[in-house]
Amino acid sequence: MEIAPAEIERVALAALRRAGVPEAPARQQVALLLEAELRGYPSHGLLRLPRIVERIANGVVDPESRGEAHWRGGALLAVDGRRGLGPVVALAALDTICERARETGLALAAIRDCDHLGMLAWYAEEVARRGQVLIALTISEALVHPFGGRRAMLGTNPVAIGVPAEPAPFVFDMATSIVAMGKIHDHAVRGEPIPAGWALDAAGNPTTDAAAAKQGALAPFGGAKGYGLALAFEVLVASLTACALGPEVRGTLDSEHPCNKGDVFIVVEPAAGMAQAITGFLDAVRASPPAESGRPVRVPGDRAAAARAAALGRAIAVAPAVWRRLLVLAGEVRDVAGDAAQDLARDEAGAGRAA
Amino acid sequence: MEIAPAEIERVALAALRRAGVPEAPARQQVALLLEAELRGYPSHGLLRLPRIVERIANGVVDPESRGEAHWRGGALLAVDGRRGLGPVVALAALDTICERARETGLALAAIRDCDHLGMLAWYAEEVARRGQVLIALTISEALVHPFGGRRAMLGTNPVAIGVPAEPAPFVFDMATSIVAMGKIHDHAVRGEPIPAGWALDAAGNPTTDAAAAKQGALAPFGGAKGYGLALAFEVLVASLTACALGPEVRGTLDSEHPCNKGDVFIVVEPAAGMAQAITGFLDAVRASPPAESGRPVRVPGDRAAAARAAALGRAIAVAPAVWRRLLVLAGEVRDVAGDAAQDLARDEAGAGRAA
Repeated sequence: MEIAPAEIERVALAALRRAGVPEAPARQQVALLLEAELRGYPSHGLLRLPRIVERIANGVVDPESRGEAHWRGGALLAVDGRRGLGPVVALAALDTICERARETGLALAAIRDCDHLGMLAWYAEEVARRGQVLIALTISEALVHPFGGRRAMLGTNPVAIGVPAEPAPFVFDMATSIVAMGKIHDHAVRGEPIPAGWALDAAGNPTTDAAAAKQGALAPFGGAKGYGLALAFEVLVASLTACALGPEVRGTLDSEHPCNKGDVFIVVEPAAGMAQAITGFLDAVRASPPAESGRPVRVPGDRAAAARAAALGRAIAVAPAVWRRLLVLAGEVRDVAGDAAQDLARDEAGAGRAA
Repeated sequence: MEIAPAEIERVALAALRRAGVPEAPARQQVALLLEAELRGYPSHGLLRLPRIVERIANGVVDPESRGEAHWRGGALLAVDGRRGLGPVVALAALDTICERARETGLALAAIRDCDHLGMLAWYAEEVARRGQVLIALTISEALVHPFGGRRAMLGTNPVAIGVPAEPAPFVFDMATSIVAMGKIHDHAVRGEPIPAGWALDAAGNPTTDAAAAKQGALAPFGGAKGYGLALAFEVLVASLTACALGPEVRGTLDSEHPCNKGDVFIVVEPAAGMAQAITGFLDAVRASPPAESGRPVRVPGDRAAAARAAALGRAIAVAPAVWRRLLVLAGEVRDVAGDAAQDLARDEAGAGRAA
């Protein structure tokens, strides 16, 4: 279904309002989900909203919390998320450290116990547009097996880096798993096999059966190096935020547990006059000879920027089940037989594990 | 040849003294190279010393410089390396920001224009042992092609992360290239092919011929994601240090150019009481079921720690040509026919491009 962004926003806001979310945080949460849709990452988009509402209903998310912050030293902000919505707690912390970094050169927010942050690229772009550098790290429930291991012991542990450049900032955002768990679910729903090397089954054996992989573990990207990086990020985030680690992380995928993962933002003032030089370098990389003629070299963020430019001002494709569920949550359609929820269960399972 | 560490140290110090390096910086430089040998990374070890001496002789390294630092804000130290030796400038900066981070919670050193830092794990371990977290980034001359590209546009751009744990810190250190250029040279010297996917030749075509690969470009590790990460690190380091970028980086491989790359250190105070939790998590990862029985899951740093423990107090294996060259540089052997230098050229070519 194709829906105008303004209409999506109206319905999503109504759904959050009905769940008890005040106006300002609701707008932050919806802006984030809409941006994910615009950039072509529906796994981090509207599909997430029903789970957020469910988590609020279950009392594991407090829609009025912005977290409690205190300075641990002049440049390190320790934030207890107090079960707040991810973007709400994160943006409050980010505003505080961005301001502080203007005086101190850099500042860090060590956040724990707030809900899922969503797409990290959004924060990176926001900060880089304001002229500062952002390094963002977060962890998730254990979904990824160690290199040479069989059991899910690590989160998908994404990293995002935003750097001011002209005319648009450089934005990089990736998970350290070889692929999102959502992609495994996509394949399972469509009954398609997954490529060898993506995942293990519940017993820890390699599998190309997507249904079996859903019960198992994802591979880290890039073999031993990618595994090392994912592990280093998890240990780093835990050391700074005092959050849970590995199989003890909860609440990034389910609707029952308070979220006990950690997030780290580092904001830095760039050296003067580098935005132009960086743009020149990125253009040189894009203009360098491609491996296949006709397929120019791309720079991280190029695809998302193109998707966003193409989508802007247009209607957005939303899965019918997702849209119906949003309408139900907004109180605009009655869910007589619970069929909207059922239709959605399949899609949601995919997105929920796309953390 | 097997040489006692004390004897290596004596000769290496004599070589640096003869090149005009004062006692304290000479000791720092030698300590770093010896540690690389102990941990089983000879490509970052003694092999590097002749090039350092050559760079001093050519005036592109100033052995008396410790760099010039000024605070850009209360927590960001901007360092002009002034052609100083890598470890000398880096350790001075690190001491300064470690002390500052005790007050501010974190501090960053943005360093440019000092020589090659060597093995980043050394710095990460040093800081983590003192109870602080280190994130270290550096860039190198362009040796790595973009994903989907043909030409070397990026450095090997390593990252190291050190986190306090009990009894030993967690230390992670990797380059973002699929393999070190030194390994390509090793294969070339031995006349062995390299695995498919490691490198391109000078024309940008895939090759398994090591000699052809030496003239070409290394692949980034981990495909598109690893490429994105390598690029993000390069852009990040340049934004903070105002250093050169991509094909304009010089002096990490040659003996003729001042080194114009950048390095970034971020030191952070960890949350209280996390060292034990991190150790418990790492042990759980090690104890998780292995893919192949009898080959336990490893954690980054395990191999280097084992190598170091085995090597400690014992003689170190040094390539005869390297040792002869050190003796010549120390003035303890006369290089009548220049044969030591010739013998070494082969080894050095490998190490020089192992940046």
